[in-house]
Amino acid sequence: MTKPEHPIITLLTDFGVSDPYVGIMKGIIADIAPNAKTIDLTHLIPPQNIRAGALALDRAYQYFPAGTIHLAVIDPGGGVNRQAIAIRAGHYLFIGPDNGLFTFVIKRAKENHKQLRTFKLENPHFRLEPVSPVFHGRDLYAPAAAYLAAGAALEDFGVEIDNPVVLNVPCPEQTRRGWSGEVWAVDHFGSLETNLEKSILDGYDLKNIKVRVAGKTIVHCVSTFADGKPGQLVALINSAGRLSICIVNGNAANVLSAGIGTPVEVILTGAEIK
Amino acid sequence: MTKPEHPIITLLTDFGVSDPYVGIMKGIIADIAPNAKTIDLTHLIPPQNIRAGALALDRAYQYFPAGTIHLAVIDPGGGVNRQAIAIRAGHYLFIGPDNGLFTFVIKRAKENHKQLRTFKLENPHFRLEPVSPVFHGRDLYAPAAAYLAAGAALEDFGVEIDNPVVLNVPCPEQTRRGWSGEVWAVDHFGSLETNLEKSILDGYDLKNIKVRVAGKTIVHCVSTFADGKPGQLVALINSAGRLSICIVNGNAANVLSAGIGTPVEVILTGAEIK
Amino acid sequence: MTKPEHPIITLLTDFGVSDPYVGIMKGIIADIAPNAKTIDLTHLIPPQNIRAGALALDRAYQYFPAGTIHLAVIDPGGGVNRQAIAIRAGHYLFIGPDNGLFTFVIKRAKENHKQLRTFKLENPHFRLEPVSPVFHGRDLYAPAAAYLAAGAALEDFGVEIDNPVVLNVPCPEQTRRGWSGEVWAVDHFGSLETNLEKSILDGYDLKNIKVRVAGKTIVHCVSTFADGKPGQLVALINSAGRLSICIVNGNAANVLSAGIGTPVEVILTGAEIK
Repeated sequence: MTKPEHPIITLLTDFGVSDPYVGIMKGIIADIAPNAKTIDLTHLIPPQNIRAGALALDRAYQYFPAGTIHLAVIDPGGGVNRQAIAIRAGHYLFIGPDNGLFTFVIKRAKENHKQLRTFKLENPHFRLEPVSPVFHGRDLYAPAAAYLAAGAALEDFGVEIDNPVVLNVPCPEQTRRGWSGEVWAVDHFGSLETNLEKSILDGYDLKNIKVRVAGKTIVHCVSTFADGKPGQLVALINSAGRLSICIVNGNAANVLSAGIGTPVEVILTGAEIK
Repeated sequence: MTKPEHPIITLLTDFGVSDPYVGIMKGIIADIAPNAKTIDLTHLIPPQNIRAGALALDRAYQYFPAGTIHLAVIDPGGGVNRQAIAIRAGHYLFIGPDNGLFTFVIKRAKENHKQLRTFKLENPHFRLEPVSPVFHGRDLYAPAAAYLAAGAALEDFGVEIDNPVVLNVPCPEQTRRGWSGEVWAVDHFGSLETNLEKSILDGYDLKNIKVRVAGKTIVHCVSTFADGKPGQLVALINSAGRLSICIVNGNAANVLSAGIGTPVEVILTGAEIK
Repeated sequence: MTKPEHPIITLLTDFGVSDPYVGIMKGIIADIAPNAKTIDLTHLIPPQNIRAGALALDRAYQYFPAGTIHLAVIDPGGGVNRQAIAIRAGHYLFIGPDNGLFTFVIKRAKENHKQLRTFKLENPHFRLEPVSPVFHGRDLYAPAAAYLAAGAALEDFGVEIDNPVVLNVPCPEQTRRGWSGEVWAVDHFGSLETNLEKSILDGYDLKNIKVRVAGKTIVHCVSTFADGKPGQLVALINSAGRLSICIVNGNAANVLSAGIGTPVEVILTGAEIK
């Protein structure tokens, strides 16, 4: 990879937007790597929710230019019982705690046979000393991302390790009639994203598929919101390629009182394309 | 217009700030137009509320440098029953759905006899294929804005159209005693902006004007908050040049239980400057 | 100070993120100082809360490169009864209202014998005329910060003044058994920051210190969250160097029903290091 003139560092945290924590990280980055450009992914991951952070990162990271550094900090307990790491996965670099936050990045790299290398952040030159034990985002992760943007090599940060932490994420299961899965993310619009990938629908006719969730049976499996009527409960493949339950121009999470962990059943029997 | 070295793309959406949707759009922009600078207007337009988006855009767009590209996405239904368009209005460029979001931009251009040209976004080279039917912001609008920033001409996007959609917005009406209008926006401070322009007060003495709203009669029409006392209900001309109802250092929307659509009456009788 | 190629302007306000107010300020900055880079500290300071703004600014400003311009606007009453000022304090520049928002900046400069000069913003060339009396952020402060970034000298803005406003902030008091102070900030995670500096604990053994707050006695004074168990109420020195009360992976403000102004007592008797 050649170094871009304006390397990009994205930021994803659970720090919220009411405190200057994220601004402080950007100040440090601007000091160390004046040419870097920072882009927020989100700072409203529910506090300490590693899986939600991993999913949000997974949804976003591939839309950035090759060479982008993704800095992610969701760090329950403040980080003493885990490593701080840097990862190269394919064309992208990642900085953050080794607690499962990079689960999907690692899975995708392995599935697609991309380069995958992980290094510990150990080098004291690439941090702000003394490192506060309660704000590693400021003293450890932001400087690491900035030094990487400024030209440091991954190998300079510390020893290579083999098995970065991967979360056990709920896997959909095949049933007699189709698939059973669950809601694993809810977005700003109240759409319920499930862990069911669009590939499970291959060979089936969307308009004969049924989806059961929160006591309701959805018979409106549509390609786009415009195929439903305002207020209608529909299932569709969302922009991340996963089955989602939505209300057209409405909020499915509120109306169904459903959320992360709500079971979802897809009934394919009778929907085969003949 | 000469192309600026760092073209500006503003973003206004109803995507919220808890998901990485806006970050994804910026990643795509950074990939296509590395020199572009993105600036958020707001991402907290109430979901699917085109008029609120149009008002927020109107309030902001003219404070940017000539040549700025304003990318706005409020797109109820995900956009099948409307066009995707690019507009040049005077010194500014606009990208978004043709659903009324550019109502005030279009009205101002017509009123001020500025250049106004609208083109469909049809060119497949300026989008991410395949276009997801549920995230046009990512696959259609962000790439279009980025290619525009990178030097594409409006004419390259598609055919020119004549009549972009303009919303019917509530117009104030002249009454026997003055004007009747309504609240059409509420801001972070709880200030109630009406659709009454400051010009209706020309020739009247501010301190003798009365404003009726939510069962109250406001006799404190002031020039600035400092002319009222903390906690006092006042009417003033806000920074967008419209009559607003505010509580000094307080929240008028909460205290009056008023919001978008609340009727407002201005009584000018007896306030004539003699 | 030599002028950086991309001068940084940070923004801290109580304007919220649902309106385009902050975006408008950035548009004006981009117009006047195209090379400036803007970084948000936060825009969710509670409305009109000068002390909360002063604390947030204090927490952040020193993490930015020398020469950074910190633009801060918390301006109850819209600003008629105070001056608009620019300050140079050590390596940093500040723009905002003279109402106490720069209290900690000024105190630190005096304590550390750093350069401290304050000028009125009077020069009509460095504002947008006519200045709206209800949006000084747009017409007065953003242009001032931008002209400063574009190379204007502080001396060009107006006359120098001697005594910028400093708030009376609650000072901790020494007691028979230790110290009494209070909560003066609550962050996104519900951590309660007190006005007690870490230096008051010098010479004492952390594990024998007791902290009383909201009817509870905390015996778990820890160095890091990882020294406590999830759900445990702990006291620790936070990343700003102040005593804070937290719940490990939880929200202390909610659980204790505590907030700004809640009294906090530190009992040092029996914790002396012998």
